[in-house]
Amino acid sequence: MLPDPVLDRSVRLEGDAVLILDRRVFPHEVRWVAARSDAEVADAIRRMVTQSLGPAYAAAAGLTLVARQRSEAKSSAADALAALRTAGARLTAARPTNNIVRDLVDAVLAELAALPASADAALIVATAERAAQDEDARYRARSRTLAEYAVPLLDDGARILTHCWMDTYLIEFVRAADAAGKHFRFVATETRPYLQGARLTAHTLAEMGQDVTLVTDGMVAAVLSPHSTLGAIDALVTAADRVSMDGHVFNKVGTLGAAVAANAFGVPYYSFIHAPDRQAPTAGDVVVEERDGGEVLSTQGTRTASPLVERGHYPAFDVTPPRFVTRIVTDRGAFEPGRVGDYWEKESN
Amino acid sequence: MLPDPVLDRSVRLEGDAVLILDRRVFPHEVRWVAARSDAEVADAIRRMVTQSLGPAYAAAAGLTLVARQRSEAKSSAADALAALRTAGARLTAARPTNNIVRDLVDAVLAELAALPASADAALIVATAERAAQDEDARYRARSRTLAEYAVPLLDDGARILTHCWMDTYLIEFVRAADAAGKHFRFVATETRPYLQGARLTAHTLAEMGQDVTLVTDGMVAAVLSPHSTLGAIDALVTAADRVSMDGHVFNKVGTLGAAVAANAFGVPYYSFIHAPDRQAPTAGDVVVEERDGGEVLSTQGTRTASPLVERGHYPAFDVTPPRFVTRIVTDRGAFEPGRVGDYWEKESN
Repeated sequence: MLPDPVLDRSVRLEGDAVLILDRRVFPHEVRWVAARSDAEVADAIRRMVTQSLGPAYAAAAGLTLVARQRSEAKSSAADALAALRTAGARLTAARPTNNIVRDLVDAVLAELAALPASADAALIVATAERAAQDEDARYRARSRTLAEYAVPLLDDGARILTHCWMDTYLIEFVRAADAAGKHFRFVATETRPYLQGARLTAHTLAEMGQDVTLVTDGMVAAVLSPHSTLGAIDALVTAADRVSMDGHVFNKVGTLGAAVAANAFGVPYYSFIHAPDRQAPTAGDVVVEERDGGEVLSTQGTRTASPLVERGHYPAFDVTPPRFVTRIVTDRGAFEPGRVGDYWEKESN
Repeated sequence: MLPDPVLDRSVRLEGDAVLILDRRVFPHEVRWVAARSDAEVADAIRRMVTQSLGPAYAAAAGLTLVARQRSEAKSSAADALAALRTAGARLTAARPTNNIVRDLVDAVLAELAALPASADAALIVATAERAAQDEDARYRARSRTLAEYAVPLLDDGARILTHCWMDTYLIEFVRAADAAGKHFRFVATETRPYLQGARLTAHTLAEMGQDVTLVTDGMVAAVLSPHSTLGAIDALVTAADRVSMDGHVFNKVGTLGAAVAANAFGVPYYSFIHAPDRQAPTAGDVVVEERDGGEVLSTQGTRTASPLVERGHYPAFDVTPPRFVTRIVTDRGAFEPGRVGDYWEKESN
């Protein structure tokens, strides 16, 4: 058995608080941020206390927290419903590019909407709590399924370049490979400005006993090129924050450059996501978040740029057109990007 | 008149020492490293106290220092010659990829070799000193000429993406643009692991009153892509550490990714170098330096990677094939990369 990495469970509901492992400082510090309301959970997501798939788990816990609070306060059915809907809207609005929180919230609210009009407060909060926890579990299960579709795309011993932090997808991918008797070697980018690759990905892979080499973001093309001395890269593998129905991949800024370089040097690029987003028919339907450009001027709180420099630019995500993507790997199999919309015609398994 | 930036003169010969501005910490600290022998100058180059074109100026000063030391020691002609040749070999061997130190040393040694066999020590040291200083001045003059060829490639108001630190090429490029009544806007990458872009390039551009925005290395493709919110990039402009006669560009790692992305999105890439290297007919004739992979695990002396990560990889340069290069701009004009060898058929001006 592979060891379970710390980041496998980075959101906990304890007493009156959602405890969220602070990914901005992990593993240099292991600090849990306590959010005591849905607004505080949304704020933690906005401030990137958790990111990647973390907001899904935080949102599920946040909805559960609200349900319990309404139960303790003996709210009326109408008040409980209103509180859960407000929480859902707040959590969904925290960050715009990834759609996992929206989908999770919608699933929970749909269960509430399906209750009979006569449902009392107790039934409403119990339903919300169960639905939120089901969604959390379903999220993990779908990630396992996705990982099982991904492993056959790669041979034992493959050297994989990855960017940023794939969260549960990565953990389940390593587990699924291990279960299939395959061992991969990883090259991780550090992923400035927040260094998710250097901290979260490299740490988690090391915890799981995987072979990992760190490179800077600027080295991606060099390691993909035939002149690399690191040994050939067999595939670029990243998560996707969103995939539009026309096959555009939205993911942490830096993914596009890696995909373009992989394409130029004949290396396949596999992008992991549960499903393309039916609410985003084209790339133009997705909002790409811009974060504070000041983040680029510092590294982990220390100024790294010249003090004379006043302006940084920080698009949090980039958009990789389908021509640079080999396969989009979902929980219903691997699709050519131009045909990823077929996902929704396929039976769930 | 534009202000003169500090890095315009980052090597000084004072008394018995070559003073080299420490680019590893500038501008956060302004520290001059004193090298009191050719071996110490070579060591400073190896440890990247100075880089980009800095080693040329350091080598010129180092040869001058050796000449003066031999003069003060009243060495014999044979001893003076031997000391200068040893110094030249040491300085040339400090780092392998860039050929400017080699060419500068060869030019000085060629002048010594052209002296009559009867030359005494005084003539030898005077010749070496003058030749080294001529080379320093010629290096700056050639950079000005190169810059004058580059400016017409870009329109007034052009937004230019640059990577790493172009040193005298950049300073002369800004001066030549200003003289031509053009003003460019710059987007600089931070250039991990040493952050030359965030520190040296961004600082120098700000000192010269230029408009500069900083991005991380992973944002290069995003800002070149049509989805960028920064405004269209009109050209990618970098220096080259070496250009082989078959048009391959060797430059700071990260250049390849930028060039590939520029190519994918139809943005021209102009690479600046005085001349292609006749001693490197093909890409295979250039040694690409690898530096300590441990550098990738830290940022300015602070560990940024997870403590569990044991291995980084640090190819100091990458190799951009000619298909990704629009023009190689030299002191004899701008060449298509496949025809850069024509440089040597053209008259010097």
